[in-house]
Amino acid sequence: MNDPLRIGIAGLGTVGVGTIKLLRENKNILAERCGREAIVTAVSARDPDKDRGVLLGDFKWHSDALTLAMDHNIDVVVELIGGSDGIAKDLVEAALANGKHVVTANKALVAHHGTALAVAAENSGLVLAYEGAVAGGIPIIKALREGLSANTIDHVHGILNGTCNYILTNMRETGKEFQKVLVEAQELGYAESDPAFDIEGVDAAHKLSILASLAFGCRVNFDSVHVEGIRHVSPIDIEFAAELGYRIKLLGITCRATGGIEQRVHPCMVPLDAHIAHVEDVFNAVVVHGDHVDTTLYEGRGAGQRPTSSAVVADIADIASGRSSRTFGVPATQLSELQTVSISERIGPYYVRFTVIDKPGVFAEIAAALRDHDVSMEAILQRGRSPGEPVSVVLTTHETREAAIMATIDTIDNTEAVVEPTRMIRIERF
Amino acid sequence: MNDPLRIGIAGLGTVGVGTIKLLRENKNILAERCGREAIVTAVSARDPDKDRGVLLGDFKWHSDALTLAMDHNIDVVVELIGGSDGIAKDLVEAALANGKHVVTANKALVAHHGTALAVAAENSGLVLAYEGAVAGGIPIIKALREGLSANTIDHVHGILNGTCNYILTNMRETGKEFQKVLVEAQELGYAESDPAFDIEGVDAAHKLSILASLAFGCRVNFDSVHVEGIRHVSPIDIEFAAELGYRIKLLGITCRATGGIEQRVHPCMVPLDAHIAHVEDVFNAVVVHGDHVDTTLYEGRGAGQRPTSSAVVADIADIASGRSSRTFGVPATQLSELQTVSISERIGPYYVRFTVIDKPGVFAEIAAALRDHDVSMEAILQRGRSPGEPVSVVLTTHETREAAIMATIDTIDNTEAVVEPTRMIRIERF
Repeated sequence: MNDPLRIGIAGLGTVGVGTIKLLRENKNILAERCGREAIVTAVSARDPDKDRGVLLGDFKWHSDALTLAMDHNIDVVVELIGGSDGIAKDLVEAALANGKHVVTANKALVAHHGTALAVAAENSGLVLAYEGAVAGGIPIIKALREGLSANTIDHVHGILNGTCNYILTNMRETGKEFQKVLVEAQELGYAESDPAFDIEGVDAAHKLSILASLAFGCRVNFDSVHVEGIRHVSPIDIEFAAELGYRIKLLGITCRATGGIEQRVHPCMVPLDAHIAHVEDVFNAVVVHGDHVDTTLYEGRGAGQRPTSSAVVADIADIASGRSSRTFGVPATQLSELQTVSISERIGPYYVRFTVIDKPGVFAEIAAALRDHDVSMEAILQRGRSPGEPVSVVLTTHETREAAIMATIDTIDNTEAVVEPTRMIRIERF
Repeated sequence: MNDPLRIGIAGLGTVGVGTIKLLRENKNILAERCGREAIVTAVSARDPDKDRGVLLGDFKWHSDALTLAMDHNIDVVVELIGGSDGIAKDLVEAALANGKHVVTANKALVAHHGTALAVAAENSGLVLAYEGAVAGGIPIIKALREGLSANTIDHVHGILNGTCNYILTNMRETGKEFQKVLVEAQELGYAESDPAFDIEGVDAAHKLSILASLAFGCRVNFDSVHVEGIRHVSPIDIEFAAELGYRIKLLGITCRATGGIEQRVHPCMVPLDAHIAHVEDVFNAVVVHGDHVDTTLYEGRGAGQRPTSSAVVADIADIASGRSSRTFGVPATQLSELQTVSISERIGPYYVRFTVIDKPGVFAEIAAALRDHDVSMEAILQRGRSPGEPVSVVLTTHETREAAIMATIDTIDNTEAVVEPTRMIRIERF
């Protein structure tokens, strides 16, 4: 058997501790599969005295994570600190500069600096692996980069944030308001105490930008992702969705489009006959459409200690086995500069909910606005009837350019009958 | 750029032609991803004059497939002839003996001779790849062998045969008899003119035995798979299934069990809340449960020219990129000899349908037989009532050992009231 692969782990939070445990629990099977052992030789974390529920044994302790990059007894640095910049970035750069492979589960880092880090890794013949950064336990990075490598990919979409999916599932099942379900999710540990990155869609956008780069061979371009979170999804929209045959999901969507690619994260209405509509709770799922393989779907747990550790250790096993790929499928220096098309160019059906005073002439005003902006209506629904009181009027449109629907909403919102901000949710039929 | 990878294709049926087309269509993207071109240099098929709708260009033509193994201008032999023995086996053995990597989509070959071929390949440092052999476009071999390599796998099940899934879906949607739907499927090209391998479950069993080897690191043991096809599934069972909240699917199931593993292919009743219950038509899906990743699901097209070519070329791309894995995850010489536990040891709930003459005392006889064999009933249903005429009596049981349910059926079938063979379908809740 070959020499062991020596691993240094930076960050001993949930995933760091899970990785140590997994490497111990499945030590023998991993050695058999890789033809060598993968052993942790050094670790780094903030507090050396904290009880993490795992024996840190004779691992060398680095109080400064950066010195891991200089440790001669490490072949692979596993970065589990998190954050797009700061120590995480410094460590990964230093590790690559010192000839060490890097495994990370840090989506923010890869989303913001993936291209530059990939160039650094590939220039030195090193691996930069990040299966744990997207959709936890689902081996979607490997599927896109290797399993589907024969395809020209034209569309990827997915449920990429378990917290949002849990909240939307729970809202649908209980009829409760967003804020209430969020608080409960925090109590259950399904949402962070500062939940902004999750519920605002930023976390999903990090992951989406990584998937887009892999799918289309383009530079990671997180900054151009259009991002909307789930804060404005209300129980009444969930009810209307059900009535119309849809379910509301926060999706990340990227596809080829005229002039470049689309990259967007926002709540969607997905028809009930789409498989992804039934992916519930904390589960993630990714759908990939390739020119030969047609549609494939991958589902699993999107986060958590054990699923994410599974992904981190799969990357370690690839390195131990001598398997490597280009970071984003094609050489990093050849990643293209694909433009992200503005969301206002999106063409598709829309769900729009107006809150209006129920009085004669309101429908006529809405109808006139639709006509003036050349928007073709598919269906219209009204809940209850209370003359003189606010009621919800919902309409769905045929395929429309987003700019037209926004202009229509703008026109209608400026009429006297509208008493609350109008809500729009994109319908995605795939 | 490195020298091109030179490919010889044996068998120019649907997948062979698809592979040639794909390598041409996605030539540039493949070269970018692999760092070298993958080019077909030679082919072999029965009839050199047949119009296959693809230019065979200046490929060297081998009228004897075996001579591909000796062709000095070939690095990889792609075996797409099919069949567990005969030329396919001879070719693969000769190719490995002559230092050539092998890519195959031949499940029968891998199911029957996978272990020996893997030993031959690994002893010579060659790749034997077979992504196209299981579940067409779904990269499930790679997922099990690499993506989930950090896990101890304890359960794999899946819809592994698109023809059967199409027939069962169609029977459910139309209420038609098996035989009628089969004939229609043949007319549509979804079933072979000799459909035995598909509808008897043999094709699914080939695939299941391969998945079991990968999941559990054991020698491929097709002969011990318990196999039942879908010929006896009748519209009335499909109706009862719906009434009970189930859907009937032909599943391949393999899991760890006391004394070894289970390996079985048979019609199952799957609860409607299981994702796999909603995988319809020709689609395949595989569910893998690992100790860290928990449950993951992979879905896509199980067959067809383009999806299967996608899998074949993904294997070619791995070889072109210098990525390799042990054939079944662990070294072939270390694959274990896991016993397959007899189906009579299976423990789970059962659906049983008796056809009996509706007269007083019948229920008492059934109840007595259940009691005598210690089988605990969950529900009982009867369709219609026609005194003195045959009626269907359906019962579902709690967890029971298969030997007990078979003995119960045997006892009841020997009573006078039973007028048709009793039907049993295993309920799988996962």
